[in-house]
Amino acid sequence: MTDFAATRAQFHIPEDVIYLDGNSLGPLPRTAEARVAAAVREEWGEMLIGGWNRAGWIEMPRILGDRIGTLIGAEPGSVVLGDTVSIKIYQALAAALEMRPDRRVVLSDRGNFPTDLYMAQGLIASLGRGHTLRMVAPEEVEAAIDEDVAVVLLTEVDYRTGRLHDMARLTARAQAAGALTIWDLAHSAGALPVDLAGAGADFAAGCTYKYLNAGPGAPAYIYVAPRHSDRALPALSGWFGHAAPFAFEPGYRPGVGIDRMRIGTPPVLQMAVVEAALGVWEGVSLADVRQRSIQLSDLFIAEVESRCPQLTLLTPRDPSRRGSQVSFGFSEGYAAIQALIARGVVGDFRAPDIMRFGITPLYIGEEELMRAALILQDVMENRLWDEPAYRFRAAVT
Amino acid sequence: MTDFAATRAQFHIPEDVIYLDGNSLGPLPRTAEARVAAAVREEWGEMLIGGWNRAGWIEMPRILGDRIGTLIGAEPGSVVLGDTVSIKIYQALAAALEMRPDRRVVLSDRGNFPTDLYMAQGLIASLGRGHTLRMVAPEEVEAAIDEDVAVVLLTEVDYRTGRLHDMARLTARAQAAGALTIWDLAHSAGALPVDLAGAGADFAAGCTYKYLNAGPGAPAYIYVAPRHSDRALPALSGWFGHAAPFAFEPGYRPGVGIDRMRIGTPPVLQMAVVEAALGVWEGVSLADVRQRSIQLSDLFIAEVESRCPQLTLLTPRDPSRRGSQVSFGFSEGYAAIQALIARGVVGDFRAPDIMRFGITPLYIGEEELMRAALILQDVMENRLWDEPAYRFRAAVT
Repeated sequence: MTDFAATRAQFHIPEDVIYLDGNSLGPLPRTAEARVAAAVREEWGEMLIGGWNRAGWIEMPRILGDRIGTLIGAEPGSVVLGDTVSIKIYQALAAALEMRPDRRVVLSDRGNFPTDLYMAQGLIASLGRGHTLRMVAPEEVEAAIDEDVAVVLLTEVDYRTGRLHDMARLTARAQAAGALTIWDLAHSAGALPVDLAGAGADFAAGCTYKYLNAGPGAPAYIYVAPRHSDRALPALSGWFGHAAPFAFEPGYRPGVGIDRMRIGTPPVLQMAVVEAALGVWEGVSLADVRQRSIQLSDLFIAEVESRCPQLTLLTPRDPSRRGSQVSFGFSEGYAAIQALIARGVVGDFRAPDIMRFGITPLYIGEEELMRAALILQDVMENRLWDEPAYRFRAAVT
Repeated sequence: MTDFAATRAQFHIPEDVIYLDGNSLGPLPRTAEARVAAAVREEWGEMLIGGWNRAGWIEMPRILGDRIGTLIGAEPGSVVLGDTVSIKIYQALAAALEMRPDRRVVLSDRGNFPTDLYMAQGLIASLGRGHTLRMVAPEEVEAAIDEDVAVVLLTEVDYRTGRLHDMARLTARAQAAGALTIWDLAHSAGALPVDLAGAGADFAAGCTYKYLNAGPGAPAYIYVAPRHSDRALPALSGWFGHAAPFAFEPGYRPGVGIDRMRIGTPPVLQMAVVEAALGVWEGVSLADVRQRSIQLSDLFIAEVESRCPQLTLLTPRDPSRRGSQVSFGFSEGYAAIQALIARGVVGDFRAPDIMRFGITPLYIGEEELMRAALILQDVMENRLWDEPAYRFRAAVT
C-alpha cells in the first residue's frame, strides 16, 4: 500500500497554501533542489564538456523516458524525453500522416488542448495537401471515425472538464477503421494508470511538469509503439535523432527506434529535475493513487456541492469517466479563483467560466480539501469575488 | 576598455584545467548557481503556478531575447528565446520558403552544421513540393546564388574550421537575387560582433550554451527582421505563439511580431541560467572581445605551428576571415585530443581529423594558451596519443 504521508513529506509546499493546481504545475520535490545544484556545480561546473559522457547527459532522454514509460504502460525503449508537448505532437502527427498517405482527415475533439490543435493546423497548412482537421464534440469522436480518417488525435483527459476518454476502446475503433492514434497524456501521466501498450496506442506525448512535478518548463516526452518506431519519420529531423550524431554526415539518416525522435541538444538542467521528481514515484502504486484520487475527488465534489449551490459541476460524476481534477462552472469564475488564491487556496481558471482544482494524492489529503471547500463557501456566500482587484486579468490565467 | 581579469573572475573554471572548448560548452558563470537555486526554491517552490506572473516567467523569452539582441545587432523586439537551434532553423526555413512560393532551392554550404542541413532535409521531405537542398563549398556560395534560390541558409562561422562568412556581402547578394537569408549564429554570438540589422539579414538563430555560457541544453533563440515578423508564419504554431495564448481558442492566430515564433512552455530553469550568464556581458565591449580574440588566436597559432609541425592549420590565417576558434588537422586527432584532455587541456575533436580549440577572451589569456601549446608539443613529440586508451571513442566526441 502506498504511503501517502511519506510521499507528501517529499514535497515542499509553502505554509498556508492549499495547492490544488498540481494539474497545471506540480510543486517542488525536495530532492530537486540538491539535484539541480549538483548538475550545475558538479557536472557542468567541474566536468564542463565532459559531462556529456561522464555525467551521462547524452543518455538521459532515453533513461528518463524509460522511467516515465513505466508510469504510462509503455514498452522499454519506446519513450524519449525532449522539447515541448507541442513539438512532440507535431512529430507524432507528421509521422502518422506520412504513414497514411491516402487519407486526409485528422480527427480531434473540441476538448483537446488548443496547442495540439494549433500544431495540427500548422502542419496541415505546411503540407498543403488538402488535409483537414475535423473537430467534433468529445462524445462524438467514436462515431466520427471513418475510412477518411488518417489519425485520431486526442488528449485523454480534458484540461477543462477532466472528462476521460476510453483509450483502449477508441484506439481499437480507430485501428479497425485503418487510422492511427495519438494520445496526449498531459493530464494523465501520474494522475491515473495509463496502459499504452495494452491499449495498442500508436503514438503518445505528454509533459512532465504537471502530475510528474518536474518544474516549470520541464521537457516533454514522446512515445512511439515499437512496431512503428523504425518506420515513423520524425519530420523534425535533428542531429540528436541521427543514426550517428557525432559523425557529422551531410545527409540525415534516422536513428534506430525511438532515438530518431530526438531533435536537438537536450535541456540538461531541466532533465536533472525530472530525474529527481521521478524519484518520488519509487514505491508508489498508480492503482493506489487512482483509488485515492477518486475518493478525494468524490469528497471535494460532495463538500463543494453542499456548500456552494452557485457552482455547477462540470466534471463527470462517474469516477471511471474522469481524470484527477474537479471543475466547476461559474460566470464570475476568474474573480472567484483570485479571491480563493488570496485566501491560500490555489486553483486556477480556464476560459470562459471554469474553476479547476487538481486532485493530487501524493501531497493533498482530506483535511485540506475540506478546508478548501469551507474557504470556497466563504468566497461564494459573501461574494468575496466581487472585489475590483480580483477582476484584473493577469497575463497567465 | 573591457576588464578581462574581471570577466574571468566571474567564471568557475576547475583547477588544473585549461579550457579551450568554450566554443562547444561555455563554463559556469559563478552567479548562475545562485540564480538557478533561486528559481527553484524562491520561484517554483514558493510561488508555484504564480511564478508565471509574479516571477515573470512568461516574459523571459522576450526580455532575454532582447538582451541577446544587443550582442548580435538585432532591433529591439526581434529576438525570442526557446527550443533548440534545430527547431528555430526549421521555423525560419519554413517561414522563408512560404515567403518565396515560386522558388525551389535552399542553398547552403558543406561547412554548415549538420543539424541545419538535416532539418532542411526533413522540412523539404515533409513539404513534398520538389524543393532541393543545394550544397556547395563555402567559397562557392556567392556564385551559386541565382534566381532559383528561395533561401540562403548559412552558419556564419564554420564549426570545424572557424571560417567566417561575410554576412553583409552574402545577404546583399542573396537579396539582390530575390532570395532570403537565414544565419545560424551558434559560433558567432558572443564570439565576435554581429550586426544583423546592419547586414539586413532576414532570419537568424543561435544557441546560448557556447560563447554565451548559459549551460548544457540552454535554450536557443530566433531572430526575424521586423519587416518580416508580422508576415512570417511559424509553421510550428504552438499556443505560446498564439495571439491570445490563454483565451484557448480552437483556431490558431499568430501572435504579433516575434512572439509568434514561440511554441510551447519555455524552460524556466534554463532561462534563469541564461539570465545569469548574460550578466557577464555588462560592461563588455564586443569590439574589445574581438580584438583580444584575434590577438590570442594569432598567438596560439604561432605557438602551435612552431612547436607542432605534425599539425596543419585549418583555420584561415587572415583574422578577418575567421571566428573565435583555431583548428588543426591531424590524422590521429581524436587520440591526440584525448591525450591533451588527460593532461588538463580541454579542446575537442570533430570528424574526420579536426582538433578544435575555442578562444574565449572572457576567461582565457596568453599564459594559458602558451602552456596549452607546450603540453600539445609534449603530446605530439612524444606520441602520447599513441596509447590504446585514447583511441576508444566516447559517445560524444
